[in-house]
Amino acid sequence: MRRSVLGSAKALSNSSCQSHCNVLLRRPLASSLSRFLSSTSALDSPPAPPSMAPVSLDTINPKALPRHHQSCCFFFFLFDSFSGYWVLKCEYAVRGEIVTLAQALQEELKSKPGSHPFDEILYCNIGNPQSLGQQPITFFREVLALCDHPSILDKSETQGLFSADAIERAWQILDQIPGRATGAYSHSQGIKGLRDTIAAGIEARDGFTADPNDIFLTDGASPAVHMMMQLLIRSEKDGILCPIPQYPLYSASIALHGGTLVPYYLDEATGWGLEVSELKKQLADTKSKGITPRALVVINPGNPTGQVLAEDNQRGIVEFCKQEGLILLADEVYQENVYVPEKKFHSFKKVARSMGYGEKDISIVSFQSVSKGYYGECGKRGGYMEVTGFGPEIREQIYKVASVNLCSNISGQILASLVMSPPKVGDESYESYYAEKDGILSSLMRRAKTLEDAFNNLEGVTCNKAEGAMYLFPCIRLPEKAIKAAEAAKTAPDNFYCRRLLNATGIVFVPGSGFGQIPGTWHFRCTILPQEDKIPAVVSRLTEFHKSFMEEFRD
Amino acid sequence: MRRSVLGSAKALSNSSCQSHCNVLLRRPLASSLSRFLSSTSALDSPPAPPSMAPVSLDTINPKALPRHHQSCCFFFFLFDSFSGYWVLKCEYAVRGEIVTLAQALQEELKSKPGSHPFDEILYCNIGNPQSLGQQPITFFREVLALCDHPSILDKSETQGLFSADAIERAWQILDQIPGRATGAYSHSQGIKGLRDTIAAGIEARDGFTADPNDIFLTDGASPAVHMMMQLLIRSEKDGILCPIPQYPLYSASIALHGGTLVPYYLDEATGWGLEVSELKKQLADTKSKGITPRALVVINPGNPTGQVLAEDNQRGIVEFCKQEGLILLADEVYQENVYVPEKKFHSFKKVARSMGYGEKDISIVSFQSVSKGYYGECGKRGGYMEVTGFGPEIREQIYKVASVNLCSNISGQILASLVMSPPKVGDESYESYYAEKDGILSSLMRRAKTLEDAFNNLEGVTCNKAEGAMYLFPCIRLPEKAIKAAEAAKTAPDNFYCRRLLNATGIVFVPGSGFGQIPGTWHFRCTILPQEDKIPAVVSRLTEFHKSFMEEFRD
Repeated sequence: MRRSVLGSAKALSNSSCQSHCNVLLRRPLASSLSRFLSSTSALDSPPAPPSMAPVSLDTINPKALPRHHQSCCFFFFLFDSFSGYWVLKCEYAVRGEIVTLAQALQEELKSKPGSHPFDEILYCNIGNPQSLGQQPITFFREVLALCDHPSILDKSETQGLFSADAIERAWQILDQIPGRATGAYSHSQGIKGLRDTIAAGIEARDGFTADPNDIFLTDGASPAVHMMMQLLIRSEKDGILCPIPQYPLYSASIALHGGTLVPYYLDEATGWGLEVSELKKQLADTKSKGITPRALVVINPGNPTGQVLAEDNQRGIVEFCKQEGLILLADEVYQENVYVPEKKFHSFKKVARSMGYGEKDISIVSFQSVSKGYYGECGKRGGYMEVTGFGPEIREQIYKVASVNLCSNISGQILASLVMSPPKVGDESYESYYAEKDGILSSLMRRAKTLEDAFNNLEGVTCNKAEGAMYLFPCIRLPEKAIKAAEAAKTAPDNFYCRRLLNATGIVFVPGSGFGQIPGTWHFRCTILPQEDKIPAVVSRLTEFHKSFMEEFRD
Repeated sequence: MRRSVLGSAKALSNSSCQSHCNVLLRRPLASSLSRFLSSTSALDSPPAPPSMAPVSLDTINPKALPRHHQSCCFFFFLFDSFSGYWVLKCEYAVRGEIVTLAQALQEELKSKPGSHPFDEILYCNIGNPQSLGQQPITFFREVLALCDHPSILDKSETQGLFSADAIERAWQILDQIPGRATGAYSHSQGIKGLRDTIAAGIEARDGFTADPNDIFLTDGASPAVHMMMQLLIRSEKDGILCPIPQYPLYSASIALHGGTLVPYYLDEATGWGLEVSELKKQLADTKSKGITPRALVVINPGNPTGQVLAEDNQRGIVEFCKQEGLILLADEVYQENVYVPEKKFHSFKKVARSMGYGEKDISIVSFQSVSKGYYGECGKRGGYMEVTGFGPEIREQIYKVASVNLCSNISGQILASLVMSPPKVGDESYESYYAEKDGILSSLMRRAKTLEDAFNNLEGVTCNKAEGAMYLFPCIRLPEKAIKAAEAAKTAPDNFYCRRLLNATGIVFVPGSGFGQIPGTWHFRCTILPQEDKIPAVVSRLTEFHKSFMEEFRD
């Protein structure tokens, strides 16, 4: 059956170049595809009798079942009880086929050096700075190490190894933990003292009060997003408005919780602008289909698109959510990553409060993570969400959902408090801390600009400014011949391009279809994270590859 | 509406003492309760129109919605499409009302010393050893601190602060991490080198091969359980067999994923025996109701019941799963916690392999955690599941579900490898490591015995042997007068007892209704974790309280 499904999807792709890869995002297309599929495959037959094996692809939860993966995103089918058809849904991109291929190539380079026309794999697929050589902030790691092994805190050798303010901070943190037990489960929302520190950090950032009881510490931002989706989504009739292109955490989480992703399109022509008129249009369309819109996801700075919203634009979004009774789910994990002087990060809560809207006017959830910013501590799995405008009854429900996993990891909790309360002027570590932070951020800024220019110099490629976050999302106009070659290779054209690029250069991009794009357009996402001394090689290898690719496929 | 529901549940409680607290566990009871409710409340009316607030108790996901909590477990309602009635479901116990009350009392003790007849709260509610003063294993913490801050590894002061084998182990681990980047996202299953170490540890434990590709590292065991439930449960028609009494992670996870908990009862009279005849009976009953049994959960050593299964019994369970095509979900997180010489821990995989059953014969998932054992590192959120007998296709699906959260935290991953590969004879740390481990386990053994004896000395209380794990689950025969007083106080009798105990002594137990118990019987769960010097106080305060309680309520 898997092969016939692939064949069907393929046949449709052949019949219309508009239909590629976007089936999740445009319901009419999805439904025409599903109608097509239902007429040519067994998908709408009654379920097969359970197989004898305890578990098989036929007997696992279809919501967790990506039936096959084409390109870098995974597709699977869900029965749409409104339309009466099976619909194709789409899942995780940044860890998809291209990355698996890259890992295989890396193994081959290790076992057979010289077996490929490059020496190393350059992972530009995922916002994972330390995997590409970014060093952690010394102060943060000092405090973590001391909290992990507090018995060295009062030994004399420790003074020689750790900065005085790291030792002092470790003591402060230990004093906030009941029994100084860094190995104990904490309160399910996270250690109270650390939440106090985070709330103070938010207040210092925004100039408006923050309540530690509104903070939920989590293992990175992803579990926080899942928690909110779990709470909000009751059935396929509940819709969550998401930007397209979007980070696939949202599409995956909505699919896993059985809701409906309601797309709104960012406008590439205006630097990935988020227009309230587009929100209104999609909302009206959604309501007319009997879907109840529950929440609006905004990623600011944008992922994969790298734009930073202007404050005025944010006010319009807040007003829209207030009027429509939508919960604003604000992904603000790139709040420290802004690279252009004309833009600044403003939290949505700050914007709402500065408009005079308080707790009773609008519900906002702000997601923050230790994985991004200048710290880039992905492996520590720290993060929090600040939940405002919900009232104690709903907060209590969130608490109970959080309780089922007991608590998030304590090192991640400590780190979340540190990134919201780094060393201050006058602290022993301040100068070296600031030098490390500034070194990373100014280098990221230079890398973003170099890559942006390089993309804009490629034939048929245009790339918006990287104002923030860690990504560029250039648009590539592929020759018809390349699109045909991709069809012959049974893959999406952007995946075809990325696969060829990887095989020729070792550079790993994620095809745009993993994030969503206007049908008939092609993109890829490239992180700005390779170390600065590697950027020239990325640019020259990419430029050379692109030239020969265009020569091979020029119409 | 909430009040009327409470009223209805209460009215039913009054009408039959058999119906208390067990609605989740006995489907006929659940359905009689729901029938009762549906005739007296608005629960079976069409859903109310959405309120104007973006989110309210009426508009959040009912699967995540504990409508009110009575006693220490939370109840909520789900529509049962088979019976056509709303059914009451039950949720998290170990963090319930009694614990919230304890935290409030603790605050009062801090702000008004002397305001209660005790100086401190003795938390016996949760398996959280380090919160009660258990010290972490030094070697493990040394390695974690060095991995957190590797730049001190080659400094001379480090030799004076850390043991030589901890330094060596930290180097080994760093060499297993690509780029030595402990701050990078890892492979979604966890760092390959650490999985190699864990697989070697399993092989050394069992004497049968283990494949690192079968290991999924997770943030503690809970997310692993959720992942399996997410994969296995397609609808309410999928049933998961769970022991009663059970650790409420299972009931909560099954409810959150929309499945049906199929109870099988442990036999208190035979030391919480797990009888295959009972499994067969419940299985037949389930099938007759049109539920498809998918998996069997076994917790060994038992939580909350503390029994250790005999190998012969395990063979019977394996045979049953093989014959019935059930996946065996083996919660083996207490594998290091066995306190009686006549019992040994055997992993279910080892038992199956020793019966000659291989990959193709039976699917087994073994859950392990760094939170339990002698290490008790709950706050580190480390753990893994070993998934055997599923085949590469299903493993790939599990991988994709794991990918959505990117990876588990790296410190937890490192710690999981350490607990499966602790210092060995001849290593510098071995003696001190062994002394710490033995000190903790032998003390736990003494504490278990002292508490077991103390319970058995109380009027109307009987307590099975604590063979393993960290809990005792004594049975208490409450006088009719106490049951009536509980009814008047609108709570379950076991909750009534635990609340009175807490208010009188500061001791926190979890009422049995949070774990499930035979209707009409009452229990509570008590951890064996208070430090040894506090055990005499626990025993004397408990004994004194119990005497006066019985005097007050004796029939």
